[in-house]
Amino acid sequence: MNLNRRQFSVLAGAALAAQSLPNLRAQAEDRRIGYCIVGLGRISMDHFMPAVKLSTQSKITGIVSGHPDKARKMAAQYGVPENSIYSYETCDQIRDNKAIDAVYIALPNNMHAEYTIRAAKAGKHVLCEKPMSTSVADAKAMIEACKQANVKLLIAYRCQYEPTNLRAIELIRSGKLGTVQAIESANGFNIRAGEWRLNKKMAGGGPLLDVGVYSLNACRYLTGEEPVEVKAYSSTIDHDGRFNEVEENTSWAMKFPSGILASCNTTYGANMNGCYRVHGSKGVIDVESAFGYQGQYLKASFDDKTSLDEPNPAKDPSHFIRMGDYFSNCILKNETPKTAGEEGLRDMEWMSKIYESCGLSL
Amino acid sequence: MNLNRRQFSVLAGAALAAQSLPNLRAQAEDRRIGYCIVGLGRISMDHFMPAVKLSTQSKITGIVSGHPDKARKMAAQYGVPENSIYSYETCDQIRDNKAIDAVYIALPNNMHAEYTIRAAKAGKHVLCEKPMSTSVADAKAMIEACKQANVKLLIAYRCQYEPTNLRAIELIRSGKLGTVQAIESANGFNIRAGEWRLNKKMAGGGPLLDVGVYSLNACRYLTGEEPVEVKAYSSTIDHDGRFNEVEENTSWAMKFPSGILASCNTTYGANMNGCYRVHGSKGVIDVESAFGYQGQYLKASFDDKTSLDEPNPAKDPSHFIRMGDYFSNCILKNETPKTAGEEGLRDMEWMSKIYESCGLSL
Repeated sequence: MNLNRRQFSVLAGAALAAQSLPNLRAQAEDRRIGYCIVGLGRISMDHFMPAVKLSTQSKITGIVSGHPDKARKMAAQYGVPENSIYSYETCDQIRDNKAIDAVYIALPNNMHAEYTIRAAKAGKHVLCEKPMSTSVADAKAMIEACKQANVKLLIAYRCQYEPTNLRAIELIRSGKLGTVQAIESANGFNIRAGEWRLNKKMAGGGPLLDVGVYSLNACRYLTGEEPVEVKAYSSTIDHDGRFNEVEENTSWAMKFPSGILASCNTTYGANMNGCYRVHGSKGVIDVESAFGYQGQYLKASFDDKTSLDEPNPAKDPSHFIRMGDYFSNCILKNETPKTAGEEGLRDMEWMSKIYESCGLSL
Repeated sequence: MNLNRRQFSVLAGAALAAQSLPNLRAQAEDRRIGYCIVGLGRISMDHFMPAVKLSTQSKITGIVSGHPDKARKMAAQYGVPENSIYSYETCDQIRDNKAIDAVYIALPNNMHAEYTIRAAKAGKHVLCEKPMSTSVADAKAMIEACKQANVKLLIAYRCQYEPTNLRAIELIRSGKLGTVQAIESANGFNIRAGEWRLNKKMAGGGPLLDVGVYSLNACRYLTGEEPVEVKAYSSTIDHDGRFNEVEENTSWAMKFPSGILASCNTTYGANMNGCYRVHGSKGVIDVESAFGYQGQYLKASFDDKTSLDEPNPAKDPSHFIRMGDYFSNCILKNETPKTAGEEGLRDMEWMSKIYESCGLSL
């Protein structure tokens, strides 16, 4: 199938429209899943919360924040009652709030484990931002806590719910690309001084955990395989005070069981516009802006002279709507999410091995 | 400087025109360098010889071939006298042919060393195709033989004489890209069964030697640094009889002294359209078809919102004209070429280390 830009736009528009059809049962009974936002940072306030507002499957029913003023302001904006605002000290009380079905954890990486476990113990499902944690042990503890509490855990791998990435996977699985031989991927940005991401304790590591994880995860979902081995380097070039605790660059080669080889770069020293290129025996797929909140662009060319040129017109926060609604549906239907804790754990394990190969550790 | 496609075409055309200005002294005295072609394969007959025909610095004055009919046909076409046609057995007689200044060696990889050394001993300069050899020891012996004979040796790294690649280097050196952090490169093609390249003895190795060497060389000329270390994987996915002797895929990560990290893929299992992407603190440079005989296309975007879009309209065999004329001028002016034997040796050493990291050997 060879879609031009207009045809793709029409299809994408239709898909969005279909998604927005009122869920009559949900409207009648308000079966929307109520989320308590844990952490009022950019990703919560600018992306996840606006997405929930546009969703028919989810709603915001609580806020945990260390900033009471900001919390009250956001609560007012999203119709969250005053008594559903919690501090980090009081947040275990969400246990008694029936309007809260799940939490959305958008805290610095090193707090993911603690708040996932506290939420699980409070009987709430957990949607936790990536990277899952700052250690393999924490990731395992998170999985175990959710299992013990019989709550669901989703790691926020947006891209696995995003149409362009799904399209790349579909093209590969359909055989259209032939036998996949190799993948390149890069993701990174030029970080500003002072970000918590530069604090080793809070972040757990450098760009690998924050943005390189997208390339790692992509190599796994594109191949549909678990790697067998990884070899890597890290480096710091800019001695300008930003990289006293975490490395600036990491690059790794990865081998998959079928023989597919992947090469990836990640950095905090250059704006990389996350991308990947998948080389198959019958063609190549290129995805630009593969991991951003919008702007995904898939191009492919095949040895049979056909090609694809598929910009994705969907705007932020559509990824968050899709991911949030997916999790809400998993909760409503009691289904295990595809990017459950085990998916995050695997990335944590591979990132730990990448660091080990660099002579570093998580 | 932000050139649009038309402006770039005009400039590129002017550059080509300037290059074609008659070299009056050469015309008066016919100071053109006479090349003896060693090996009548595709690269000789379809690229190098037509290039020499278009050159004002070079001419074809001899042929060494194992196929007398083909040799006579090509000799007639290029005005080479019958007595300047040699077989592999008689080729040492080029020593007595004053019309032959240099040889162009376009043989299977494992014959590069022998014929470079024989040509050097015959007192002829040597333009040898890449990869330089099939072992580090051979590369060293080639350098030593040319040194002893006081002849020049150029390894045919076309891309180091090609305007788009030179433009990428210039953009990096000028500081326009800021601090380079990372490079991705890939080069490969889907090989047909039966090629000599699949014979380990003749080729020395798999796609790394044949096409991966372009990415390796590019990482070196783009950074202007020698790597400090490399880690790699090889694999064979297609068990269809092609890869009984050499591997199908190789992927490697490479670290440079400044901290720049590079990730490269090469394959004989997919048509890769050789490319690289250089990530700097102020922007990114993308070169598509970076290593082919034509079709180079440079795009760059910078954090200051400027961008470059520079298709290169030059057609094959312009790369061979540039490279051949460069070497002819080195000979005429008694200058050491920039891609001399030492440049080839370094790549051979790094390819040897890449294989070692894969558990293989050259």
